[in-house]
Amino acid sequence: MSQLQRIAIAPSQFQQGQILLTKEQQHYLGRVLRLREGDRFIAMDGKGKWWLAQLAGEQAQVLEALLVETELPVSITLMVALPKGNGFDEVVRCCTELGVTCIAPVLSDRTLLHPSLQKLERWRRIAAEAAEQSERSFVPTILEPVTFNTGLSFANSQQYICVARGEFPHLKDCLQHKGQRTNDIGQERIVIATGPEGGWTTQEIENAIAFGFQPVSLGRRILRAVTAPVVALSLITAACEV
Amino acid sequence: MSQLQRIAIAPSQFQQGQILLTKEQQHYLGRVLRLREGDRFIAMDGKGKWWLAQLAGEQAQVLEALLVETELPVSITLMVALPKGNGFDEVVRCCTELGVTCIAPVLSDRTLLHPSLQKLERWRRIAAEAAEQSERSFVPTILEPVTFNTGLSFANSQQYICVARGEFPHLKDCLQHKGQRTNDIGQERIVIATGPEGGWTTQEIENAIAFGFQPVSLGRRILRAVTAPVVALSLITAACEV
Repeated sequence: MSQLQRIAIAPSQFQQGQILLTKEQQHYLGRVLRLREGDRFIAMDGKGKWWLAQLAGEQAQVLEALLVETELPVSITLMVALPKGNGFDEVVRCCTELGVTCIAPVLSDRTLLHPSLQKLERWRRIAAEAAEQSERSFVPTILEPVTFNTGLSFANSQQYICVARGEFPHLKDCLQHKGQRTNDIGQERIVIATGPEGGWTTQEIENAIAFGFQPVSLGRRILRAVTAPVVALSLITAACEV
Repeated sequence: MSQLQRIAIAPSQFQQGQILLTKEQQHYLGRVLRLREGDRFIAMDGKGKWWLAQLAGEQAQVLEALLVETELPVSITLMVALPKGNGFDEVVRCCTELGVTCIAPVLSDRTLLHPSLQKLERWRRIAAEAAEQSERSFVPTILEPVTFNTGLSFANSQQYICVARGEFPHLKDCLQHKGQRTNDIGQERIVIATGPEGGWTTQEIENAIAFGFQPVSLGRRILRAVTAPVVALSLITAACEV
């Protein structure tokens, strides 16, 4: 059971045993995932091919090809406002089962909880257990909690923010259209953000839109902060399953 | 309007423009919600009717009928093998939020739990609370637990049984094809069955198929008995949302 970080690459980035990293990928590996020169990670081409790679400057050396059958061909990051109580345990457990790649807990304007380091260790343990139980090949990464605005800056590629009230398109329709238009849903990194109890503030939604997030609906009923991530992941993983 | 407090009432409590409040409702409105004489709230009869009402002693004066749009245009019955422990509470809560119409707990070959009548009352209370919180107009029905084979005989119309292992088509593809072919996904009753820890037995799957159930997959990862119903409901409600 590997605990290595994963990134999605385009098939064209793989050349002669090397992966040529984009500026965004270099930033993500170095600043967000905190990998250093020589650290290993997994590169996925979105077509079902996975490689074990080693960071080497602006590129990565491919060490070996990996065979996986229970993982999705896409990288899914869940940005989730920390709910109150122990609700986050269940979010980590369910979203790991569903196939999430990375969970980024964020502190929003309406977040009350500022978790301890023990909590983070606990979530990582839950993710490892859930990955094993669900027969996944990889354990999702649980990032240290950051502020919502810091979290926004991690994102690129397909980015959605779930908003409970308002006339936004349904997430499933956005995923479908994306797939139909470009036929390359699997080649991208998907980032999905779900809010705290009481929802995101107007300011947070505006900031997210400014960062390129598309506001989406999960339906007409109001979901709890702990239910919304599971519903969002259900729709995304179903859309990406090959 | 959306900020008014809501309570669920029985249709029989609505009589000649008045709502006759039970002792529990009077306590809830007065002590818990701190409403006073003349304050307004929303009463939902669980059958799709909502009223704006005004507290007047042991009753409430109905001021006007309200139009609600948070219910799905389709009836969804979840047949779910009872999981161990208190896991079923969360299934009832999440699936109610998502929009389920009816939950039929079934006793399968691998079900250990034989629930008491208190449990059934507890689940019905959870469903009523969750319906209120998610701003639904209907409180889902929770049936008394029956054996799996009895449960199978309730079904008609579109029937799916989720099977964890095996090469079955993904639920989302079945829903899509159905929608495309007949363009009437919203007009039918959908029955979805999810299994216990350890999955359905081969005999149970065969019985279900004999009763016209289509075996479907929820993806390549193994979901817990408490996660599978939420994932299945997420996909169905998204497919049926208008």
